[in-house]
Amino acid sequence: MIEMISIGKEVISDYRCFFCFARAFERMLERDNLSTEEKKFFARDMFGLFDKGKNDLSIPELSRKLHVLFKHYSNNPDPYQDVKKSSNDLVLAMYPELKNMVFNSANHFDTALRLAIAGNIIDFGLSNDFNLQGTIDKVFNSDFAIDDSVQLKQALFEAKTVLYLGDNCGEMVFDKLFIETLMHPNLFYAVRGAPVINDATVDDAKYVGIDVVADVISNGYDAPSTILDHCSDEFIDVFNRADVIISKGQGNLEGLLGYKNKDIYFLLMVKCEVIADTLNVKKGDFVVKKQD
Amino acid sequence: MIEMISIGKEVISDYRCFFCFARAFERMLERDNLSTEEKKFFARDMFGLFDKGKNDLSIPELSRKLHVLFKHYSNNPDPYQDVKKSSNDLVLAMYPELKNMVFNSANHFDTALRLAIAGNIIDFGLSNDFNLQGTIDKVFNSDFAIDDSVQLKQALFEAKTVLYLGDNCGEMVFDKLFIETLMHPNLFYAVRGAPVINDATVDDAKYVGIDVVADVISNGYDAPSTILDHCSDEFIDVFNRADVIISKGQGNLEGLLGYKNKDIYFLLMVKCEVIADTLNVKKGDFVVKKQD
Repeated sequence: MIEMISIGKEVISDYRCFFCFARAFERMLERDNLSTEEKKFFARDMFGLFDKGKNDLSIPELSRKLHVLFKHYSNNPDPYQDVKKSSNDLVLAMYPELKNMVFNSANHFDTALRLAIAGNIIDFGLSNDFNLQGTIDKVFNSDFAIDDSVQLKQALFEAKTVLYLGDNCGEMVFDKLFIETLMHPNLFYAVRGAPVINDATVDDAKYVGIDVVADVISNGYDAPSTILDHCSDEFIDVFNRADVIISKGQGNLEGLLGYKNKDIYFLLMVKCEVIADTLNVKKGDFVVKKQD
Repeated sequence: MIEMISIGKEVISDYRCFFCFARAFERMLERDNLSTEEKKFFARDMFGLFDKGKNDLSIPELSRKLHVLFKHYSNNPDPYQDVKKSSNDLVLAMYPELKNMVFNSANHFDTALRLAIAGNIIDFGLSNDFNLQGTIDKVFNSDFAIDDSVQLKQALFEAKTVLYLGDNCGEMVFDKLFIETLMHPNLFYAVRGAPVINDATVDDAKYVGIDVVADVISNGYDAPSTILDHCSDEFIDVFNRADVIISKGQGNLEGLLGYKNKDIYFLLMVKCEVIADTLNVKKGDFVVKKQD
């Protein structure tokens, strides 16, 4: 049995999350081909879940349920399939240039780490608009708002087993470059158990070739997060064995923040005020945070 | 007993209204001084009402309940008091110039009617941003998308009693000018029974001097609409006696569309896709529509 300290619940009962979901699904309904009647019923069920979510569900669980509902209504198990492929293709096209950036830089680790964090901007959960090149430029001209990167580098050097929790398609190509740079001999790359938003699955991971540089595993669950209570035994086994865990993005952080039994490093771009307030940083900041 | 044909219910169960409310109250929470805890409880109760609204409440009734809730949480019976005063002051400052426009124009009725409809843009229920001057310019360079203005003019000429259903502060100053132009000897101007959004109340009407050109009455209810089932006996008496009813804005239309027993003219600027679809016109259109 895994012991969870559910600080997550506090982050996560923030009222602003509900309004953010309302905006996100309003955008999804606008671009989807559901009938007006279906959209109405979706909205009804969605606000019904909000009502339930106020007490019973953490935000990543609520998010999962909302996306399960949307997939049901749209009769499409992977509504972001096209978006995911185009994000992956976009960054794969940049990959040779990014690789040159890393290996021509003075500090390979730092450059690849910064790129991996900048890649976290590719997140369709919060917005359909993002400026990838602007974010890359910014990450090289900013200090990390929380910077435990020295500890991370040391911990990776000492770790026998590393578990890297992936987040979004497109972003994953940056992860691949970071992982190549690390050259760790025993690194697992975990993805979602099934499609949710533009989060990476095993198929997506193979599409960009992460399986060449890491052991790709599914976490066995389709929340846009890592919710240990629901992850597969295979995933939990690797999680327990890992000496260092790299957690990418807000969703994984929401599931794991407060879980004190493991050496977890949260790598993310801060994309909303709720997470900004939680970490005591600003929206738009870049973070490398060791679990307290 | 008033017979209602509740076409309104159909307009109004549109799923888009719920998302619009979510956006509107998110903006209100952002500018209000509620604590995070209070905002959370407000959001909880709000989404609870959404859940209820899916079956039991019309959109104007739901809107009313949401604003009652907000007033309760913010401990402020009139959260838009400042906004209402500044809208009134803004248009009062323009008033001499607007009056010159009307009385120097070739067609006083048409000019004052167009200004009264342009003034309907001053609506904080949907957005905090509006371009009043741009809307005035546009109304003089557009055809009405539905134009029953000739019938309206004739009906007003023949009517013994006219009831004018006001809508928003600021807009009311345009109404005053239109009413002055009509010079009808027996015209009632109805306002909300208590503050809701930036809708006009008796105090607001007196502030801009509408009581000089019309008999100001309260409708006795605090929905941002005219919901006959809840209006005061005094209002219903005038409503029943009126030969012509002028209904300003979307809110009044939502309450009265489909009420076939009276000669109602809906004057409005179309400010959302739901009303646009209902009237088979476009968002941004200007409308003078006789009740079918």
